[in-house]
Amino acid sequence: MFQRLFNPSSIAVIGASKDEKKIGNVVLKNLKAMGYNGKVYPINPKEDTILDFKVYRSILDINDEIDIAVITLSANQSIQAVKECVIKNVPFVIVIAGGFSETGEEGKKLEDELINAIKGTNTRIIGPNTVGIYIPRSNVSTALTLPERTSLPGDGNIGFISQSGALGLLTMDIISEYNLGVSGFINIGNRIDLSEIELMEYFLKDENTKSIALYLETFKDGRKFFEFAKEASKIKPIVLLKGGRTDAGAKAASLHTGAIATNDSIVDGMTKQLGIIRAYTEIELFDYAKVLAYQKPLKGDRIAVVTTAGGVGVVTSDYLTSQVNGVGLKLAKLKEETKNKIKKSIVPFGSAENPIDLTADGSTEQYDHVLEYLNEDENVDGIIVYALYQTAKIDIDLIDVLEKYMKGKPMVVGIMGSKIGKRMLVEAEKRKIPAYPDIERTVKSMYALYLRGKYLGD
Amino acid sequence: MFQRLFNPSSIAVIGASKDEKKIGNVVLKNLKAMGYNGKVYPINPKEDTILDFKVYRSILDINDEIDIAVITLSANQSIQAVKECVIKNVPFVIVIAGGFSETGEEGKKLEDELINAIKGTNTRIIGPNTVGIYIPRSNVSTALTLPERTSLPGDGNIGFISQSGALGLLTMDIISEYNLGVSGFINIGNRIDLSEIELMEYFLKDENTKSIALYLETFKDGRKFFEFAKEASKIKPIVLLKGGRTDAGAKAASLHTGAIATNDSIVDGMTKQLGIIRAYTEIELFDYAKVLAYQKPLKGDRIAVVTTAGGVGVVTSDYLTSQVNGVGLKLAKLKEETKNKIKKSIVPFGSAENPIDLTADGSTEQYDHVLEYLNEDENVDGIIVYALYQTAKIDIDLIDVLEKYMKGKPMVVGIMGSKIGKRMLVEAEKRKIPAYPDIERTVKSMYALYLRGKYLGD
Repeated sequence: MFQRLFNPSSIAVIGASKDEKKIGNVVLKNLKAMGYNGKVYPINPKEDTILDFKVYRSILDINDEIDIAVITLSANQSIQAVKECVIKNVPFVIVIAGGFSETGEEGKKLEDELINAIKGTNTRIIGPNTVGIYIPRSNVSTALTLPERTSLPGDGNIGFISQSGALGLLTMDIISEYNLGVSGFINIGNRIDLSEIELMEYFLKDENTKSIALYLETFKDGRKFFEFAKEASKIKPIVLLKGGRTDAGAKAASLHTGAIATNDSIVDGMTKQLGIIRAYTEIELFDYAKVLAYQKPLKGDRIAVVTTAGGVGVVTSDYLTSQVNGVGLKLAKLKEETKNKIKKSIVPFGSAENPIDLTADGSTEQYDHVLEYLNEDENVDGIIVYALYQTAKIDIDLIDVLEKYMKGKPMVVGIMGSKIGKRMLVEAEKRKIPAYPDIERTVKSMYALYLRGKYLGD
Repeated sequence: MFQRLFNPSSIAVIGASKDEKKIGNVVLKNLKAMGYNGKVYPINPKEDTILDFKVYRSILDINDEIDIAVITLSANQSIQAVKECVIKNVPFVIVIAGGFSETGEEGKKLEDELINAIKGTNTRIIGPNTVGIYIPRSNVSTALTLPERTSLPGDGNIGFISQSGALGLLTMDIISEYNLGVSGFINIGNRIDLSEIELMEYFLKDENTKSIALYLETFKDGRKFFEFAKEASKIKPIVLLKGGRTDAGAKAASLHTGAIATNDSIVDGMTKQLGIIRAYTEIELFDYAKVLAYQKPLKGDRIAVVTTAGGVGVVTSDYLTSQVNGVGLKLAKLKEETKNKIKKSIVPFGSAENPIDLTADGSTEQYDHVLEYLNEDENVDGIIVYALYQTAKIDIDLIDVLEKYMKGKPMVVGIMGSKIGKRMLVEAEKRKIPAYPDIERTVKSMYALYLRGKYLGD
């Protein structure tokens, strides 16, 4: 059934408008701009055409099955619209309006009316108080974004479920920079009906989704989440950014989505037990979701580091091994045989000790040899490689070498710099090589693989 | 005297070459590409002109004062070259070659010869084993960068001293993205003569330098550093990224620059006592140096947060107040009067409680009012503002409003997103508004202002 939400054949926009400032206009315009090629049915009692689409007086006038109805009316008006969607047997209704339970008692009453309207029917509500959905593979977006101001990601392998619309859109804008993609984004908003669990169920089955990223301020049903995630987490990696983990944050969350806080030590215990990776920022959320989507888990804590910049090797060693400002993993002790082989491959002033330093004379060929030797060394569990394209002997085809070793031990790549560095991060993304623009993000992503491996190994 | 290093009238390149693969060619080419408009004297015993510059057989043949000699010869050959620079009375000699003490006993002997060559003279050595200097204001670079691969920053207010050349250049490449500038970069390399202390002395006096960023794997003289920094830190903020703070990192550092580690608890105690802000990554180093260069210190820990995205307010509140995954500051408790004024300025569904949420309806004018009220509220010590340009009612001129309040309480700005977000980060940088592309970096930079204020307040 969820196919009709993630790959809809027909979308009705209730409250469609000719007024460019109205939500009912922006939604239609964005569907057009996205290149959505299913059927679009604008609903407006007075207009005949909007943006070249034929307009219907009511959803009940449409002689076709509707997969999604997007309601762009006010909170009050949305209730009648939902009732009509129920009559029309629309499976998914997105209620965009705010002004429900997040605003107090009166809004709560309106929300109860929405719930009652769909009770015992086949119609499911997303929202209210939501920006809706963004599904790049199906060219569907109901979000009120201005394309000239916001980038949205292309198709990818991360399923993204967010209780916050704006944080979700902003984070997707950020990850677009290096072309990281999503298999779908759903803003569950006030979540009166469709919950994170049902959407996770979909993403678990969706073969394009390799990891699930969650932004939640509360769980709709903590016990159910626990039971569900216990099994789900074994199948696909789940990363959680939990808003409201402090008293101050929880108070803010209660004003934001009417969320009532769960004691964070409970959340922490639960996520640890379930093998859910916790992120503490929007950047970590997608850094971890990416590495877990593209790379196998780590089966130990002994990491080899390869660089052409000595200082980067030093700071990486610090961040990798420190318990306080770092992740507490270990630098692998290379076998003598490995060190000897590396020594023969690199320049005399380089370091064959871990962290391995090829120096500014490092070449693509040297990377190839060193990665081969590290993959053969049983003292190495995972490899952090810095591909620093700034020096003359590194060819663009170093990316081919990295791609080759994606088949080997868990490997995470650091690619720094604003010029060639940024271009090569995009290239790495094309090949689904997990690469990051600085030391901390590179090392922490390796740690996410470690946590995943530790969970699965138990 | 240091003026001759930071603003040289004449530069000799010893070992200048026509061979494009030789360092002596790249240095000349980069000086030309930088638009250096002092005199350039290539030295080569066999050539007549290189890159249109007249070539001299020896530095002793030049009938002019030389401010800087860049020696691009091998370690062995560099010794004789330095001796000639001493005869010529050149104040600053940059010895680029590696192959000195960082490679063992033999190299150490060569290094001693270098030291002996300048003993009791007016000639000072930078390096050896260095990429040299990069001074955008004087259009001087001796670094072996490929302009098509590396961006280097423009003129700015951060003095940058680094023991590592590659890490220094990479970090400058990264900060170029949003046009953050430096007042000068010096790679001290093996640091046989010119030390971090003398360079810090220069930056302390240089009126363009507002903060000092250090990457050090060791202190040349810990006691001297302590005595010096005790006074220096009162005058200008100092940020330190200390490589080799763990056993693993220290071992890597000893292979890298021959550094012998200081126990990190000593470094930690010293920096705390001296009010030096510690960074743990290359990103933090410049995030903190920037905020300290552009913004006044914080005189308390009560922070107001302004956003148009509820979820961003929630995650910021968490990161701001958490002791574990966060910085442990407080959300300011706004006065009732302030809340009432804010309530009247923003939309009904917004939040006048801290974190203040203007919602997607937030406008430039509303920001202006809210920032005014927060600046008047004595319960507020500092303000984190998210300028999220993705929504329709935020005009580009929100940046003018932010600039206006740079005169007010300490304020740090978050600007997220890869499209308009990136453009506006560049615009913020132009106006020297400390702005950051994600929540964590924004909040941590506010914390740097807190540490600075706490130190100065004692």
